[in-house]
Amino acid sequence: MLPSPLSSQLLAAARGDIPADLVLRDGRVVNVFSGEIERADIAILGDRIAGVGPGYRGSEEIDLAGAYVGPGLIDAHVHVESSLCLPAQFAAAVVPRGVTTVVADPHEIANVAGAAGVRFMADAARGLPLRVILMAPSCVPATDMATAGAKLTAGDLQQLLSDGVVHGLAEVMNYPGVIAGDADVAAKTAAFRGRPIDGHAPAQVGRALNAYVAAGVGSDHECVTVEEAREKLSRGLYVLIREATNAHNLDALLPLVTPANDRRICFCTDDRQPADLLEQGSIDHMVRRAIEFGINPVTAFRMATLNSAEWFQLHDRGAIAPGRLADLMIFVDLAAPRARQVYVGGKPAAAFPDDTAIPDALTRSVNLDLERIDLRVPARSGRMRVIALRPDQLITDAVLVDPTIFEGHAIADPSRDLLKMAVIGRHAGNANRWGLGFVRGIGLTRGAIGGTVAHDHHNLVIIGCDDDSMRRVAGAIQRMGGGLCAAVGEQARALPLPVAGLMSDRPVREVRAMYGELLAFARELGSPLHDPFMAMSFLALEVIPSLKLTDRGLVDVDGFRLVDLFVD
Amino acid sequence: MLPSPLSSQLLAAARGDIPADLVLRDGRVVNVFSGEIERADIAILGDRIAGVGPGYRGSEEIDLAGAYVGPGLIDAHVHVESSLCLPAQFAAAVVPRGVTTVVADPHEIANVAGAAGVRFMADAARGLPLRVILMAPSCVPATDMATAGAKLTAGDLQQLLSDGVVHGLAEVMNYPGVIAGDADVAAKTAAFRGRPIDGHAPAQVGRALNAYVAAGVGSDHECVTVEEAREKLSRGLYVLIREATNAHNLDALLPLVTPANDRRICFCTDDRQPADLLEQGSIDHMVRRAIEFGINPVTAFRMATLNSAEWFQLHDRGAIAPGRLADLMIFVDLAAPRARQVYVGGKPAAAFPDDTAIPDALTRSVNLDLERIDLRVPARSGRMRVIALRPDQLITDAVLVDPTIFEGHAIADPSRDLLKMAVIGRHAGNANRWGLGFVRGIGLTRGAIGGTVAHDHHNLVIIGCDDDSMRRVAGAIQRMGGGLCAAVGEQARALPLPVAGLMSDRPVREVRAMYGELLAFARELGSPLHDPFMAMSFLALEVIPSLKLTDRGLVDVDGFRLVDLFVD
Repeated sequence: MLPSPLSSQLLAAARGDIPADLVLRDGRVVNVFSGEIERADIAILGDRIAGVGPGYRGSEEIDLAGAYVGPGLIDAHVHVESSLCLPAQFAAAVVPRGVTTVVADPHEIANVAGAAGVRFMADAARGLPLRVILMAPSCVPATDMATAGAKLTAGDLQQLLSDGVVHGLAEVMNYPGVIAGDADVAAKTAAFRGRPIDGHAPAQVGRALNAYVAAGVGSDHECVTVEEAREKLSRGLYVLIREATNAHNLDALLPLVTPANDRRICFCTDDRQPADLLEQGSIDHMVRRAIEFGINPVTAFRMATLNSAEWFQLHDRGAIAPGRLADLMIFVDLAAPRARQVYVGGKPAAAFPDDTAIPDALTRSVNLDLERIDLRVPARSGRMRVIALRPDQLITDAVLVDPTIFEGHAIADPSRDLLKMAVIGRHAGNANRWGLGFVRGIGLTRGAIGGTVAHDHHNLVIIGCDDDSMRRVAGAIQRMGGGLCAAVGEQARALPLPVAGLMSDRPVREVRAMYGELLAFARELGSPLHDPFMAMSFLALEVIPSLKLTDRGLVDVDGFRLVDLFVD
Repeated sequence: MLPSPLSSQLLAAARGDIPADLVLRDGRVVNVFSGEIERADIAILGDRIAGVGPGYRGSEEIDLAGAYVGPGLIDAHVHVESSLCLPAQFAAAVVPRGVTTVVADPHEIANVAGAAGVRFMADAARGLPLRVILMAPSCVPATDMATAGAKLTAGDLQQLLSDGVVHGLAEVMNYPGVIAGDADVAAKTAAFRGRPIDGHAPAQVGRALNAYVAAGVGSDHECVTVEEAREKLSRGLYVLIREATNAHNLDALLPLVTPANDRRICFCTDDRQPADLLEQGSIDHMVRRAIEFGINPVTAFRMATLNSAEWFQLHDRGAIAPGRLADLMIFVDLAAPRARQVYVGGKPAAAFPDDTAIPDALTRSVNLDLERIDLRVPARSGRMRVIALRPDQLITDAVLVDPTIFEGHAIADPSRDLLKMAVIGRHAGNANRWGLGFVRGIGLTRGAIGGTVAHDHHNLVIIGCDDDSMRRVAGAIQRMGGGLCAAVGEQARALPLPVAGLMSDRPVREVRAMYGELLAFARELGSPLHDPFMAMSFLALEVIPSLKLTDRGLVDVDGFRLVDLFVD
């Protein structure tokens, strides 16, 4: 694993023939191989562990006085973009908590900027005290019923793999395509033969699941019940239990874990916002929760370390053992591990650089010609198909509603909880295309909200009580080069996300503070939701039932087709 | 894993859109993922499992009526040559017992015939109903204190890897070299970076073990105590528990296994002779023994299947799951699994071909010019260094003994249990070199025994009561082109091993019968040992203490040097 000179030095240090760089004395080592806590010294040379056990001397020696030492935690699946921060600031949030490796799917930025976006994430992660293992986004765009900023073919993904930018294939969300054996999907999985191929197969069981597994997919992080997870695990999938900001599966799935099956269960966060990262934490939060639930602490660590290392073939980490990376989490309470100190590659993780070079192209991702966009909806006879939110769910209902007509147009009518929604193309290829519709459940009573975070295509979504407020929001977001905004009259609050319209270039604590103000303002505008921006960000996602709106218009997801706003 | 057309057929079968080739109905499936026994149908298309569960139809359907179905067993480390049979006949012994994959180290034939020998084993294994995964022999020759028939450099091994002949690096026996960071050994491990590298580090613990692991070795099959195994496992090595003909570690190591550590414990047979294979079995014997000891049956299967598949990165087998190879062992008694039927690649394993093409070069491996070989030992003053067997051990003692002198020569003296031993070069490069010495503990009272199986260099070893019998044995073995022989006067019994002097070209049952007659005859000649030929085969192994004899002379293994027979 190491260049030869370093390797021979490492052996010399392991033998004790030369002093280690650092010896951590008298730790309680979380041994994920033996399943036990082992009182031992850890000798480190360079970025590697040289030896575990007695008899080492080091240039530096630190007495742990019996503190626990676990392997650095691994997040088995995360979209860094969902932190609204650049990788360096995402690292600043998670590394101090003990997370030293994340397996990241740059799916969001890829939908905006294609392979260049993926390469930017690789560049932005280089040199950080966080190991970011990038997976190739497998489904860009998600469908042809919306317009993303880019398309990634099997050839594009293969190029990223041969360039060493990506390690495996990220969640293959097009599970119907996998199961059906679609040529396009098959070409992508074929390109990653022998590499980890992550899955995403919500609610798939039985023969469909068999086909999904037979196609070569090896994991799933969409389980919501123990029954579903048990079947997936039994068919050979690694089950990545997810605890995201918008999807909480941990408590429901912890009863799945037994000593007989825990080796194939991992932890992941998928999508976590700054507030959750800073207040609850990341994978460390899941480890604590698992222990609190009654799972053996070493098992909890194993799900957060070795298991993910094995699934992703990252055999140089995930355990405290000779030759492995010296990524360590030191803590004092085995009942609720909280990092007191974190080592990454044998060095205390401290500085998180704030000088990511951002290519100009990524800061010019919002292409709007607002003059040409007409938000009016001419009235027609009949009722309208309206998107109805379900609280805390990504699934929507399609309801039929009589329009409120004013001067020949169907308009928003907050008194009926009927808001207008626009999805406006912001990519080079769809800058003059927009879809219009109505939504129920956001609950604004005045003004409008909008943002360039809109899964998966990340066009500009605006929801409002009147066209004027909607235009103000659009204008503000255009000027910021992307971001989230709420406005009414002259008042506005915003969170600029100038990097691809997805990420801030500010410190994570600032991002969180701005987001907090924005949410407070949205509440002032009448929305009762905890986070109307997040709810909004899924209303344009044309792969989750039942009714969604994209730049191409209303999508009947169940019928997998575009439909008219009005029903005669 | 599959070519695309087959893959799309497999998905169609998994979905249930086309009938499977075979459906095994109502089995009790040993699910190594969930750790449970699962009542289910198994649908098979081609050589793969299409699906597990209900709802499948097949061109052929077999009602298992509740019989158990386990994944085909994996032998994690075996020298096929030790069966004294060609791969086809080794397969005939082990496949009917449920072993469908063996990870084989062709170390013996490589010491005779080099890379050509390794390639022969690959050719001989092709098309068999046994998957033979070849590992590259890492230590050919073992030392320069004996002469092997070939030398394999790091470059040679790399060539075998890039040609797809080998899968990883076989047991790195030169553990002092690994630990010291010797350039030659390091070049070999470097060539196999990212591939499985098997270990062999008897009794190594502490810092030496740390160095061995840091060098990139990932397993060990030399553990003899639970303490040693526990430390190796804790440092990250897979522990391959061995139950060989000449090394029985299973009972001693079963107490190691706990639900917290069993995932990194595998089973292997290393060296098993025909009698053991045919009477006790192979890995199936270990599974039964483990269950009898009290280990959960699914865990026992897991150590014999999934664990090895994971260590060796053989992710297409080791479990009964969609997309994996349909290698199955059907049995009825979970308390003592014995294969009733074995499927390999979806087909019942039945025929074992007996037409292996053997290159002429391999049948001309015994190069002797007996006329030139002088077995006499001129008498000198002083006592002799004599090799003293320890019962059932590979370790010998060095004892100092007064010679029996006759007509100016030191001679064998059965009345004092003092037999003459000769190691005679039989390879092209050492055909005229021989070493002479004396041995105590073989116990012949008349005649001589000899053979071309002599670890690791496999020169001709002869032990006898008189030079005439020794010459008869040598002559017989020369005429057979290699093999084992015992002779006295005109009487002789032999087991011809014409393939590299290591393997018979006869059916395994015949080999066993001939071997049995040979052993009976050796007992008639006075040897009280269960198997004097096996004992003899280790007396020339210059890497195991304390005193050994090679074609270069007596080796003081502790001092790692050649020494004189006589001590002044």
